[in-house]
Amino acid sequence: MRIAILGFGSVGQGVARALLAKDLNITVTGLADSKSGIIDAEGIDLAAALDRKGNGTPCGNPGISPMDVVAKADYDVLVEVTPTNVETAEPALSHIRAALQRHKHVVTSNKGPIAIAYPELRALAEKNGVFLKYEATVCGAIPLIHALQEGLAGNTISRLYGVFNGTCNYILTRMAKDGLTYEQALAEARELGYAEADPTYDVEGIDAAIKLVILANTILDMQTTLDDVERTGITLLTPDALRLAEDQDCTIRLIGEIVPETGVLRVSPRLIPKDHPLVVEGTLNAVTVETDLAGDLTFIGRGAGSTETASAVIGDLLYLRNRHVQGS
Amino acid sequence: MRIAILGFGSVGQGVARALLAKDLNITVTGLADSKSGIIDAEGIDLAAALDRKGNGTPCGNPGISPMDVVAKADYDVLVEVTPTNVETAEPALSHIRAALQRHKHVVTSNKGPIAIAYPELRALAEKNGVFLKYEATVCGAIPLIHALQEGLAGNTISRLYGVFNGTCNYILTRMAKDGLTYEQALAEARELGYAEADPTYDVEGIDAAIKLVILANTILDMQTTLDDVERTGITLLTPDALRLAEDQDCTIRLIGEIVPETGVLRVSPRLIPKDHPLVVEGTLNAVTVETDLAGDLTFIGRGAGSTETASAVIGDLLYLRNRHVQGS
Repeated sequence: MRIAILGFGSVGQGVARALLAKDLNITVTGLADSKSGIIDAEGIDLAAALDRKGNGTPCGNPGISPMDVVAKADYDVLVEVTPTNVETAEPALSHIRAALQRHKHVVTSNKGPIAIAYPELRALAEKNGVFLKYEATVCGAIPLIHALQEGLAGNTISRLYGVFNGTCNYILTRMAKDGLTYEQALAEARELGYAEADPTYDVEGIDAAIKLVILANTILDMQTTLDDVERTGITLLTPDALRLAEDQDCTIRLIGEIVPETGVLRVSPRLIPKDHPLVVEGTLNAVTVETDLAGDLTFIGRGAGSTETASAVIGDLLYLRNRHVQGS
Repeated sequence: MRIAILGFGSVGQGVARALLAKDLNITVTGLADSKSGIIDAEGIDLAAALDRKGNGTPCGNPGISPMDVVAKADYDVLVEVTPTNVETAEPALSHIRAALQRHKHVVTSNKGPIAIAYPELRALAEKNGVFLKYEATVCGAIPLIHALQEGLAGNTISRLYGVFNGTCNYILTRMAKDGLTYEQALAEARELGYAEADPTYDVEGIDAAIKLVILANTILDMQTTLDDVERTGITLLTPDALRLAEDQDCTIRLIGEIVPETGVLRVSPRLIPKDHPLVVEGTLNAVTVETDLAGDLTFIGRGAGSTETASAVIGDLLYLRNRHVQGS
């Protein structure tokens, strides 16, 4: 199977490293970051590209754009792992549209296009006889979308809720366990690389809200946008609030919740008994799904990280190879 | 899609009720319990069959055997949900062989044939161009096998361990939380229908060991039998042992573990920190998988029950329909 990779940051490099480490018989024939690209039908030397990226030199030819790779490289699957833009979904949205129009499958970790334009993209994929896979957009390494679409396929989901943002979970864990203030815990999360310089996207619950929109629109037959999510972040939480929770054998977590029947999508700090399976530590994610046949199921795992997100991308690639890529 | 169901106990009835409750476009053309059978190419009236079973009358014609249904009914998928026999795997093994030889897909909840004869059955399925699915054999409603084979397909699993038996977990939960003796907790589990009159299969860890053998042989490329599992049950545990665990903020759970690299398969009571995700309450199951890319993942859900096991069977049926059943 031949793939082209757009985006050579944390996720793209994670995918490249995993392909180098494992004998998956996947050849990368196109690669681009925001500044340069490579097209090579014989297969790109990923180790050399990773070295160049590590040295701060362009990974490819500055004359080759991501869209050149989409349009001209010879691949079965486009791997779109550029950074998420939640306002316009660009440039990923244009990349994905162009690949689907070329009858190429797409695997993406990019939340923007899936949250904003899934119905359009899915219709485009169907029209062109190809597939659009997006396991990596929600909860990183947890194969949640696979589980919901495949293993639990016969179930009706009455509620889905959980910890969708590892940055917030890290901050809340530190505040609860060690009495840190929000500001102290945030500063620590920044030092450890768990929080961005501008943490708004995480701590205001926007990241969690986007994941809810993706699950609602792609799994739960809802039609929602980010504006439909009732959203409260964690910035106003005090150590006192966490101490009060502790007194009741509870703790506070930022919980995202979907109730399909009432159309409710909500992200907010919530009091949870400390022995609840959703009370996970550090940067972990955890999701509970309430179903009619299977009962309640909880999935716990790493929600972010280069290798972890690569795991989800590679799961999708192997899914496509086992079913839909001709002659592989 | 047309299916034949062999076994009309808890699981078979759960599947029938789920098919009646949901519009899945699945027609049952064959049905048998140990004493009678029905073959009807137009579709069997499942509500009437459930009523007869509920009244203690034969569900079908005493002149029609399970093997008659396998050999003569008109179906795409055989659903083999007769009771497990861990010594010989019969009669399920013969049913499954005969169906595969007729070029029929098989979905089963029966641990015997998968634990004892998976390589042979898989080869037979491949030779005849059909599929053998067995999600329901391990951890009931948790889509663990789907997750390992699909979502985590690119990962190498270095360790897999967890709570595989709900009966033992119930007994240990009651002993830890309420100071019951093993005998008291077992008596309660029996009253609630969680334990059989002869509880050996559960409390001696045999059930958990079989599930390890299934995972080892079908997912982890090992070749093991029940004799390869080091096994200690929970019958000798005392309230004192659980109190001592409590003093260390731990509890005791019956843990099944596989370490592929060393070939170790083990079932034994183990001390676990109370905040570990595997410490689940009551009859729940929970499994942690250690992987190279995705990190550690934990799956928690109901490991048994009529409707819960039906969820896994139906997940497998829909998987087959979406991919491998012609014209559906």
